Amino acid sequence: MLRVQKYGGSSVASADHIKRVALRVAKEREAGDDLVVVVSAMGQTTNQLIDLSRSISHNPAPREMDLLLSTGELVSGALLAMALRDLGHGAVSLSGFQAGIRTDTDFSRARITQIEPKRLQDEIGRGNIVIVAGFQGTTDDFEVTTLGRGGSDTTAVALAAELRAPVCEIYTDVDGIYTADPRIVPDARRLIDINYDEMLEMASEGARVMHNRAVELGWVYDVPILVASSLLDDSGGTRIHGGELMENRNKVRGIAHDAGIARVTLLGVPDRPGIAAQVFSPLADAGISVDIIVQNAGQHGLSDLSFTVTRDDLPETLERTREIQAELGAADVTADDHLAKVSIVGAGLTNSPGYAGAMFRALRDANVNIEMITTAEISLTCVVHQDHVEDAVRALHRAFSLETPDDIPL
Amino acid sequence: MLRVQKYGGSSVASADHIKRVALRVAKEREAGDDLVVVVSAMGQTTNQLIDLSRSISHNPAPREMDLLLSTGELVSGALLAMALRDLGHGAVSLSGFQAGIRTDTDFSRARITQIEPKRLQDEIGRGNIVIVAGFQGTTDDFEVTTLGRGGSDTTAVALAAELRAPVCEIYTDVDGIYTADPRIVPDARRLIDINYDEMLEMASEGARVMHNRAVELGWVYDVPILVASSLLDDSGGTRIHGGELMENRNKVRGIAHDAGIARVTLLGVPDRPGIAAQVFSPLADAGISVDIIVQNAGQHGLSDLSFTVTRDDLPETLERTREIQAELGAADVTADDHLAKVSIVGAGLTNSPGYAGAMFRALRDANVNIEMITTAEISLTCVVHQDHVEDAVRALHRAFSLETPDDIPL
Repeated sequence: MLRVQKYGGSSVASADHIKRVALRVAKEREAGDDLVVVVSAMGQTTNQLIDLSRSISHNPAPREMDLLLSTGELVSGALLAMALRDLGHGAVSLSGFQAGIRTDTDFSRARITQIEPKRLQDEIGRGNIVIVAGFQGTTDDFEVTTLGRGGSDTTAVALAAELRAPVCEIYTDVDGIYTADPRIVPDARRLIDINYDEMLEMASEGARVMHNRAVELGWVYDVPILVASSLLDDSGGTRIHGGELMENRNKVRGIAHDAGIARVTLLGVPDRPGIAAQVFSPLADAGISVDIIVQNAGQHGLSDLSFTVTRDDLPETLERTREIQAELGAADVTADDHLAKVSIVGAGLTNSPGYAGAMFRALRDANVNIEMITTAEISLTCVVHQDHVEDAVRALHRAFSLETPDDIPL
Repeated sequence: MLRVQKYGGSSVASADHIKRVALRVAKEREAGDDLVVVVSAMGQTTNQLIDLSRSISHNPAPREMDLLLSTGELVSGALLAMALRDLGHGAVSLSGFQAGIRTDTDFSRARITQIEPKRLQDEIGRGNIVIVAGFQGTTDDFEVTTLGRGGSDTTAVALAAELRAPVCEIYTDVDGIYTADPRIVPDARRLIDINYDEMLEMASEGARVMHNRAVELGWVYDVPILVASSLLDDSGGTRIHGGELMENRNKVRGIAHDAGIARVTLLGVPDRPGIAAQVFSPLADAGISVDIIVQNAGQHGLSDLSFTVTRDDLPETLERTREIQAELGAADVTADDHLAKVSIVGAGLTNSPGYAGAMFRALRDANVNIEMITTAEISLTCVVHQDHVEDAVRALHRAFSLETPDDIPL
């Protein structure tokens, strides 16, 4: 069987870590499987390279940044190949370019356009364990690109899709996806499996084990993804897939939260068509992701428009929003950067009356004030003050009895 | 004018160093020159990567080693490009692959077979300062190779040859080639210029500012090489070329020495044709460079064969030589690893009687015993005990009045 695995930065953080991963991979090779192993950069390498670039330039060119950052995965890949060869196995490490990973030209967040699998297939055919540097590819002009945060997961899922692996195995420092962040909810439970769409909703801070793009790619190409621990021999992990779930009586699958958000409000906005585009196009052009948007119809043909961004994006968002305010002739711009999101996630939630009421009651009983509400197909999200987010997560986990296993007997 | 420059590891050792190099390069760009700048890895980066690989494997695969080590120059190149762009100049950093540097498949000591200059020329045509990662290239199969020690110098000279630059500028932490190691001879003098062949003879320890392969390449392609300091604004430096020298009354151009050598002696070797091949072919196959060879015809059809190797190579050399001893039925193998070489270097030395005598007298007067003697076209070398090598260098520097400037008035 062909197995595609990915080991994250914490799993290859040192020479000893790399040797441990090599032992794991070697064992699987000895069991007869073909292996393609995607690696992230060692531990803090990527952050160190970013720091180095900042000590040179406040605004480094994305093209140079990508060339710089791509080196981290080359290093860990070469070292893992050396370790595997020392264990007596044929192994070869490939750069993104060598592995045939072609992308568009959008530096620092490139998208994979194509995988040319010849070299990969040749190396597998020769009996080599193939190590692939994650997070990177090249354009048609041989420019080196990186895939953005979580890019190594995307590399792994794309390779699994291209090579028709039955599953993409993501090994990390946690043993799966939990019903809530175990640091906040001690009796949070590891899920046996979860659907792609639910995973996307869960993938906010706390559950941020995998990047959304990798999950989306798995969904599109129907590649099941196993998230498991690289430290445990058999953690079971959590399987992300599109089929029937093994446990499904409880529609709420988990509680997601994100403590790092900020809200910006444009007050007294003229209430006419095209306003939303006028507000959000410049933000999108500046690369700012807007999450929740709430518009309140107001009096005198004016309304208030609120939206959330990550706290990191707040300074630039405010700058742009003040420009927009002037253009629109809006009354004022206000901001609150001490907010958090908390969500209940589960397929079919919004079609099931009662879950929203239960959520609001649980928050009221925990004395958590709700600042904004938004609903999606499979989630219900409340924005709360960040000091209350942990209480909110615990209250909701308890309210929906997520600590109780819910497997359907096979 | 197109200028090809190379900055060594000590010149790009930190973010501050890189910014200083950027200021220098920017100033030259502002003077109107086109620039191709080759960089080494930052300071100790290459050694740190080697240490990292050793903590993984005692015998890492050369292919993986090259992929690993090639990252050092990518990092410094990207950072220098960022720094130049911050100064308002168009700049782009290229990997060896992107710069079109093609090599043979001899990992860890690959030779450049070809440079495809299209991308370089395009970037120069666009007005960009082109930074090239030194020390690396790729094979026809897109495997990453490195060029061995001093490889960035080789990259620079090869680019200067391909792009028809009038000179290849090598910037380093010394301000030129000296008549002897200034740490040993305080009144050693910087040479204004030196011929390629003399430079090759001088390029032993102490004068090891540039690697021989780069000098050879300059010689073959007739590219003059300027060696100068990256710290001084105008050090003058030393120009290595093939033409008439500006100073040439004194045939002895400098004193070279190498304190790190070992001698191996095969005693009682049958004196018959083919012996030399039988001894030295296995050593060459093992990648061991043999330097001086001396054979003494002996009695009873037996002779003694001595040769020198670098001290680092002694353990493996002894192992192989003992195998050879057994094959040949030689009497014994002895070794001395406390030896050093000292040479007088200058074109036409061996055609000029009197220099050898003057050398031997100077060493006798300094009480330095001579263990071996060898002569070459432009040098005369004595092997001495390593404790005496500094005395020998000083005595020879004085004997040939190298402290006295010797310029021919223009």
